[in-house]
Amino acid sequence: MNEIGRASASLAALAPRIKDAWYVIAMSHEVTGTPIVRALYGVPITVFRRPDGSAAALLDRCPHRNVPLSGGKVVEGDLQCPYHGWRFAADGRCTAIPGLDGPADHPARRATAYPVREQQGFVWVWGEPDKEPVGEPFRFRLADDPAYLTVRREVRTRGSVHAVVENALDVPHTAFLHGGLFREDRKDRRPIRCVIQRHQDRVECEFIGESRPTGLAGRILSPSGGMVTHFDRFFLPSITEVEYRIGDENHIVLNGACTPVDDWDTRLYAVVCIRTRLPRWLVRLAVQPLAMHIFGQDAVVLKQQADALHSFGEASYASTDIDLLGPHILRLMTRAARGEPVDPNAPPYVRETTLLV
Amino acid sequence: MNEIGRASASLAALAPRIKDAWYVIAMSHEVTGTPIVRALYGVPITVFRRPDGSAAALLDRCPHRNVPLSGGKVVEGDLQCPYHGWRFAADGRCTAIPGLDGPADHPARRATAYPVREQQGFVWVWGEPDKEPVGEPFRFRLADDPAYLTVRREVRTRGSVHAVVENALDVPHTAFLHGGLFREDRKDRRPIRCVIQRHQDRVECEFIGESRPTGLAGRILSPSGGMVTHFDRFFLPSITEVEYRIGDENHIVLNGACTPVDDWDTRLYAVVCIRTRLPRWLVRLAVQPLAMHIFGQDAVVLKQQADALHSFGEASYASTDIDLLGPHILRLMTRAARGEPVDPNAPPYVRETTLLV
Amino acid sequence: MNEIGRASASLAALAPRIKDAWYVIAMSHEVTGTPIVRALYGVPITVFRRPDGSAAALLDRCPHRNVPLSGGKVVEGDLQCPYHGWRFAADGRCTAIPGLDGPADHPARRATAYPVREQQGFVWVWGEPDKEPVGEPFRFRLADDPAYLTVRREVRTRGSVHAVVENALDVPHTAFLHGGLFREDRKDRRPIRCVIQRHQDRVECEFIGESRPTGLAGRILSPSGGMVTHFDRFFLPSITEVEYRIGDENHIVLNGACTPVDDWDTRLYAVVCIRTRLPRWLVRLAVQPLAMHIFGQDAVVLKQQADALHSFGEASYASTDIDLLGPHILRLMTRAARGEPVDPNAPPYVRETTLLV
Repeated sequence: MNEIGRASASLAALAPRIKDAWYVIAMSHEVTGTPIVRALYGVPITVFRRPDGSAAALLDRCPHRNVPLSGGKVVEGDLQCPYHGWRFAADGRCTAIPGLDGPADHPARRATAYPVREQQGFVWVWGEPDKEPVGEPFRFRLADDPAYLTVRREVRTRGSVHAVVENALDVPHTAFLHGGLFREDRKDRRPIRCVIQRHQDRVECEFIGESRPTGLAGRILSPSGGMVTHFDRFFLPSITEVEYRIGDENHIVLNGACTPVDDWDTRLYAVVCIRTRLPRWLVRLAVQPLAMHIFGQDAVVLKQQADALHSFGEASYASTDIDLLGPHILRLMTRAARGEPVDPNAPPYVRETTLLV
Repeated sequence: MNEIGRASASLAALAPRIKDAWYVIAMSHEVTGTPIVRALYGVPITVFRRPDGSAAALLDRCPHRNVPLSGGKVVEGDLQCPYHGWRFAADGRCTAIPGLDGPADHPARRATAYPVREQQGFVWVWGEPDKEPVGEPFRFRLADDPAYLTVRREVRTRGSVHAVVENALDVPHTAFLHGGLFREDRKDRRPIRCVIQRHQDRVECEFIGESRPTGLAGRILSPSGGMVTHFDRFFLPSITEVEYRIGDENHIVLNGACTPVDDWDTRLYAVVCIRTRLPRWLVRLAVQPLAMHIFGQDAVVLKQQADALHSFGEASYASTDIDLLGPHILRLMTRAARGEPVDPNAPPYVRETTLLV
Repeated sequence: MNEIGRASASLAALAPRIKDAWYVIAMSHEVTGTPIVRALYGVPITVFRRPDGSAAALLDRCPHRNVPLSGGKVVEGDLQCPYHGWRFAADGRCTAIPGLDGPADHPARRATAYPVREQQGFVWVWGEPDKEPVGEPFRFRLADDPAYLTVRREVRTRGSVHAVVENALDVPHTAFLHGGLFREDRKDRRPIRCVIQRHQDRVECEFIGESRPTGLAGRILSPSGGMVTHFDRFFLPSITEVEYRIGDENHIVLNGACTPVDDWDTRLYAVVCIRTRLPRWLVRLAVQPLAMHIFGQDAVVLKQQADALHSFGEASYASTDIDLLGPHILRLMTRAARGEPVDPNAPPYVRETTLLV
């Protein structure tokens, strides 16, 4: 953890599997009467909307002959397999077997069903099917606030959830990989204080003494500059949050909810909430292409990283003091994957370090 | 077997390998003086025709440096390797090694040869090379009868032999996957009796009380309707037979000889023999496109099934009473793959069940 | 070894890995200030040229987050990672970590560096990084002689180093695979003597009594015919040499330096040195397309061989007396891969055989 040293790790150790958690499986507008397929940890799940407007999610495998249910149709609110026409209710119950002289419902013929929630424009599923969820999905705190412009986007990346999350919350690479856009790789860097607080279900870093970012994005968001407040946060199982206040008028919260399509394939659902003096059309016009450009640069390097890890068959990471959150996040994810109990009120682990920006 | 219940099985358990048996390796017209390659259980076999008209089949690997012999030429009735020009007779004997000062023939230099039979438009090989075959290939009983129109077709499907065979002999899916073409998915289904007789090398289902299929195919074949006799049959290792008599004049026997290209890749050689009052040109015109359309629909769903089984890494099948033949066929194939002795005259296992059609 | 018999071998046994040796990693003109990637035994190595003209080679993996360094830039003679901007010297030392409040250099942050030599138009690396090389790379003996026309070419082949080397030094296949170009597959072949001398680090075959090759290449090189001297040689780890003298005036030495991109993917760097009475422009015009055509035919058959070996999952080779060098080369390579000590002055193993040409 932030030690000066280098550790070899298996690829599995870099991609802990947290099954007992809520994940975004699709954006609300994608879920209609025509079933779609989305994978979670490599398992295909078919998601569809019933005539009553509710979303449902079943394992994409008919219990009869294992054909994908997603090739079928929604009939009277149930999903009908395209092979023999068996039908399944949202809870997995078998409701029809054409040709069978007897009742369709039977425990052996149930489809596997996932708990579903829909809120703030996203459909979430609980990672373990046929199980009672604990708690509710993450709420994006400003997404319903009319004072904020809210933008939702999906970005898909070859890379583990940890790699994507570490990248999303990593400050040092921004000056370099995104040089000029957000921060710059200057010779005359100045030290700022970084205060890290790691709880059992989240970790946060506050940046103290930071000036307004000198790159293009900072100048657009806050032409007049001003006092900067900056937090980077991670919440289990896979949520990132970057929060900036610049002066009195500018506030931006950038969330990313990551879904493990597979151990090394991640969908990041980004929710950006912005309050600024600038007109909304201008923010949309300027910020969105910039954000997608930055995501694109990250996706390229994350794919190169994942390919290299697989080519070598292992990881060999040397961390330094300015890998502020990545090692903490891996620790939290690893413990959650093992099912270790979480006490959100336990006193945090705190440390401070210096970063040159 | 037809139990109400659900069983998990390995993929291997769904694809038993029966090596000691005859398989169609190619259609006769495909086998010429230019060698072709066809795989059986993943093993490449090169098939060629010699100047005397006989077909020959060798393992597609030169014993010298393992280059595929299929890249070579037939020279004086022998197959010549393209790399160093070694030549091999139909029985595998090495007949020439250019540059060698001494005899070519030597046990270490033999190519691996497969027993071959050619009949009724097909070239068959015995599944184990360099071994004495037992019995002769399956004969299509009406293919040589001039009173019948005979059509041969090859269909390739991603799917195990068992999955293809079960599909070819499965009645319930026809009303659904091929809805309207052959049978229809009606609300007012009527019960018919199904009598299953399982011998040690074959299993048959007789359908009693069936009306003329209501779909397009039935109406074309027998516009006037009439009394229906219907049998579905399976013969080890991989032959299907569907036989319909409708009224006095219409008789159709649809055979499928399945060849395992690999465990999950099957070539089905279909032989359809039809006697009907309709003129032959009309039957050809109407039935062939219809049959290919039905095969195409089956191929799509079988591929989805195979992909799903591989994605999950296992099968989890819930059978019901109306999975009439599939579980019996798997039982016969599994026993044959284990090499258990077969007594074709042992009394059959018989059971009866009801199907709504 | 040249025994009459047939041996099954694992694929690994046909691709021994000799790590402690020099290999061509790139041609000199390919190595510039823009890093390139070349694999050796499946390990990606990035090669670049520094402002002082020297070539450098690093494992293509940043020690920080394992992103490929080849995506970065050469800055002040060091290679800079594209993700966080860490920099590495040619010896692997970490020279900069942007944002870090402290020294960059630390043993845990070293990149892995390969010993490099550049000579005669090629950049060579030692197969084991961070290790002291033993000896110097192979010198092409006539490549610097102004009396000779020297041509360098790279050919890439799917095939193990052994398969490529055996092919490059194999005489019997030339009459067949390259029939008419170099030798011909004649009925009236005549015997010649072949004297093999196997040392611990090399093996050589002298061909005694050979006429000028009757094919096109021979007629171009030496229209007037004449006394032929012909040697085929192999040097550990992977160098081939074919030497012909025809009459007084014609001398050709054809070297191949093979680099294992992976166990079954080989780059052959060919160096052809020719002295002949013909004008150089004519030799270039005639010989180069011919040579590339021959290499192309070999590449096709080697790929077929490699594909077949992988399809069968093993090798099953039947060698004869006229597999003159291949089995000896495999023996030398296998011993070198095991690290057995080599005495270049030990008395050679000698044997003689007859070849019909």
